Amino acid sequence: MRRAAVVESLKAALAPGNLLTAPAALAPFETDGLTAIRQRPWLVALPENVDEVRTVLKVCREHGVAVVTRGAGTGLSGGARPLADGVLLTLTKMNRILEVDVASCTARVEPGVVNLKITEAAAPHGLYYAPDPSSQIACSIGGNIAENSGGVHCLKYGLTLHNVLGITVQTIDGEELVLGGKTLDAPGYDMMAAMIGSEGMLGVVTEAVVKLLPTPLAKRVLLAAFDDIRRAGDAVSAIIRGGIVPAGLEMMDALAIQAAEDFAHAGYPRDAAAVLLCELDGDEAEADADAARVQAILADAGAKEIRLARSEVEQEAFWRGRKSAFPAAGRLAPDYYCMDGTIPRRELGVVLEDIAALSRRHGLPVANVFHAGDGNLHPLILFDSSKPGETERAEAFGGDILKRCVAAGGTVTGEHGVGVEKLNEMCVQFGAGEIEQFHRLKAAFDPAGLMNPGKAIPTLARCSELGGMHVRGGALPHPELERF
Amino acid sequence: MRRAAVVESLKAALAPGNLLTAPAALAPFETDGLTAIRQRPWLVALPENVDEVRTVLKVCREHGVAVVTRGAGTGLSGGARPLADGVLLTLTKMNRILEVDVASCTARVEPGVVNLKITEAAAPHGLYYAPDPSSQIACSIGGNIAENSGGVHCLKYGLTLHNVLGITVQTIDGEELVLGGKTLDAPGYDMMAAMIGSEGMLGVVTEAVVKLLPTPLAKRVLLAAFDDIRRAGDAVSAIIRGGIVPAGLEMMDALAIQAAEDFAHAGYPRDAAAVLLCELDGDEAEADADAARVQAILADAGAKEIRLARSEVEQEAFWRGRKSAFPAAGRLAPDYYCMDGTIPRRELGVVLEDIAALSRRHGLPVANVFHAGDGNLHPLILFDSSKPGETERAEAFGGDILKRCVAAGGTVTGEHGVGVEKLNEMCVQFGAGEIEQFHRLKAAFDPAGLMNPGKAIPTLARCSELGGMHVRGGALPHPELERF
Repeated sequence: MRRAAVVESLKAALAPGNLLTAPAALAPFETDGLTAIRQRPWLVALPENVDEVRTVLKVCREHGVAVVTRGAGTGLSGGARPLADGVLLTLTKMNRILEVDVASCTARVEPGVVNLKITEAAAPHGLYYAPDPSSQIACSIGGNIAENSGGVHCLKYGLTLHNVLGITVQTIDGEELVLGGKTLDAPGYDMMAAMIGSEGMLGVVTEAVVKLLPTPLAKRVLLAAFDDIRRAGDAVSAIIRGGIVPAGLEMMDALAIQAAEDFAHAGYPRDAAAVLLCELDGDEAEADADAARVQAILADAGAKEIRLARSEVEQEAFWRGRKSAFPAAGRLAPDYYCMDGTIPRRELGVVLEDIAALSRRHGLPVANVFHAGDGNLHPLILFDSSKPGETERAEAFGGDILKRCVAAGGTVTGEHGVGVEKLNEMCVQFGAGEIEQFHRLKAAFDPAGLMNPGKAIPTLARCSELGGMHVRGGALPHPELERF
Repeated sequence: MRRAAVVESLKAALAPGNLLTAPAALAPFETDGLTAIRQRPWLVALPENVDEVRTVLKVCREHGVAVVTRGAGTGLSGGARPLADGVLLTLTKMNRILEVDVASCTARVEPGVVNLKITEAAAPHGLYYAPDPSSQIACSIGGNIAENSGGVHCLKYGLTLHNVLGITVQTIDGEELVLGGKTLDAPGYDMMAAMIGSEGMLGVVTEAVVKLLPTPLAKRVLLAAFDDIRRAGDAVSAIIRGGIVPAGLEMMDALAIQAAEDFAHAGYPRDAAAVLLCELDGDEAEADADAARVQAILADAGAKEIRLARSEVEQEAFWRGRKSAFPAAGRLAPDYYCMDGTIPRRELGVVLEDIAALSRRHGLPVANVFHAGDGNLHPLILFDSSKPGETERAEAFGGDILKRCVAAGGTVTGEHGVGVEKLNEMCVQFGAGEIEQFHRLKAAFDPAGLMNPGKAIPTLARCSELGGMHVRGGALPHPELERF
């Protein structure tokens, strides 16, 4: 009955073809990139413009129906998981690049624009959009904003937050908020930053102004091999401490190196305990000078082998191994679980040793591939879901890794978001004060709780069921965590 | 009666000397840097530690008394203006640098630490804190956080928002919120960004983790003179468009040049319509390469004279004129009113021409000194407050400049905040939807409205009294604004 009324209201308001109701049409929307969790949506709306978005929100508000906003569906934490009784608001039809403003080095885009398309539109002007998630050929800028996405180059060029200058937001109450713009700062509370990374829980972004950067004139790629993973971690700190901010600074451990080499034949040293990849950019002189300084720092830090790619072809080969690490890991075991935690850079060496210890305790191998420069770890836990208990062990192992990140002064996510995946870990990260405050902030934008309910921020009840585990700033008040 | 009860509660809770009640002791706190607006505070609390801050907030909450938080009192928009019946919470005694973490390139500091002291503490390690407001020898990091302060170097290194990694906040409800930290991203809504620039209206920052950068190895300073102010403005865009981000990119117009030269004898070309100062930093090769490229761009843009400082002494001379521009303007007229608006960089040339036209219409001279690279204008309106009506004309002229900034797609503040000074202009900048949302966000942190009430965000009633002038994204719906 209720569904029929909502369908009728939406059908009357949306252009033909912009509302999906048939089970077969709904099936492709059952999951995002976190495919372990599936739910057939109630309805899918595919608005083509702001007016249609506003109409969908109005209908949902009037019927008290929840709304989950979705971009390209590549998210890894289940932030766009549909609801059995809510509308899935999918923005892929709003995919126009509205303006490339060369003098201001900005682009104005609709939320459904694919990340890489922005760079393609800017390239003729010698410009590009910096944040480059691995999924950049598919993921949308709206989804990037929802999750505050990163990528290999975010060490130097920042997360989505640092590359979006303004957004236009539709609230469930029917307000249009214009936050930020082409200028460096704006008065009033910084609601734009609160909106970026809010996983669709505060409003719907219908337009964004993003920063474009000049395409670097030159780049250099270094590969360094280490006998000891801790020494590789310390080398990462030493590079940054040396005043160099590489365009990318990535690390792989022994298992990841083997897998990547088997898969991509990138020429990595198979006997290394860790490999660092370091990309430097700038003009020719700057890239050369930085590469020379990084080579000296790597040698000091105990690298047993350092290679500078001599051509673009070799640069691509160095990166090919790293970029194929995830599919390569897929050949090591029937399943892998990709974690996403962040730690202060100085803790890299010791946390990697502890992850190895956790791997032995849980009896599951782990391959480490990560954005070392900004301390963003992606341990890939290898398991076989067909063996009884292994899935649960993988999840427990993952949870322990994230707790270890928090205990090191880090966080339970780097760039994949919380979604439904990490609700429990949020109870480890935050105390009741912060979580209550998160709920108050949500209520300020969405008093009825209709925007993507149940994601990103756990209830206090959930945290207290988990024993209220709470670590703050590296202090461990709870004895059960002392084992780390 | 009520005051006596609050004094009694605070006296019992604070260490001796940390509560001021005598009129003579309260007098120095009557105003911040916006000295035109004065109010003797009811009481001044000077807590030494977090516990005392929490106690002051608790007493105020229990008595329903408002709290204005103050740092060093150098703010220019009246954000720390005291209340006749509220507590002035002054954090100057909380001035310890708690940690300089060299490996993570961070410092952990209390809010009362003076901006420049952070750099002094970091300098032995070859590091510094980048944001450098003109008041950096006096202003505190807590005040910088409250106003999201900028400075000459924020073009390259960002505003306070981009250089603070984490904050600890006390809310009026007695919660302690730990937001952000030494890692690049954190889960949950980005409440830290909302807190930065919130002008003391959401909570009290009692600790901050700030980013430290390596001190640049080399710098170059260029001075370029132009016959035409519009051409100088366009040169600014051309530099940025050329892929160079100068450490500083400042502009002065003819009147500011004359005044600075009379005052500081910096050797500026007295016959120029505009002067650009451009600082490039990096290593020796990078600084040289960037300086050469900027010289070429300036020549292309029609600069009639370009000088490269040949020594550190000459670099300082170039900057001395710029840095003395404000005191120098003080000799041009009995009074000056320093405005603070921001526009997209591409609009610099045309907006400067329009400010000159407004100057003729209002019959008051204006000297323009500003952070050109990020489009942050500081027009100094010259007037004589002893002449009847001139103060009002200066204010009207200032208001017109800010409306012009908004019409150009800009904002009514760059780095000085809204405070009490720009409440009316907020009604120009934002519509009812945004302003209502600002109030909701405040209520989420401060339901009783006790934190710095009446600042930064106007009431809707005020906006509607002003005729609800509202410009959004450069569109001018109201005919009375069409004259720009």
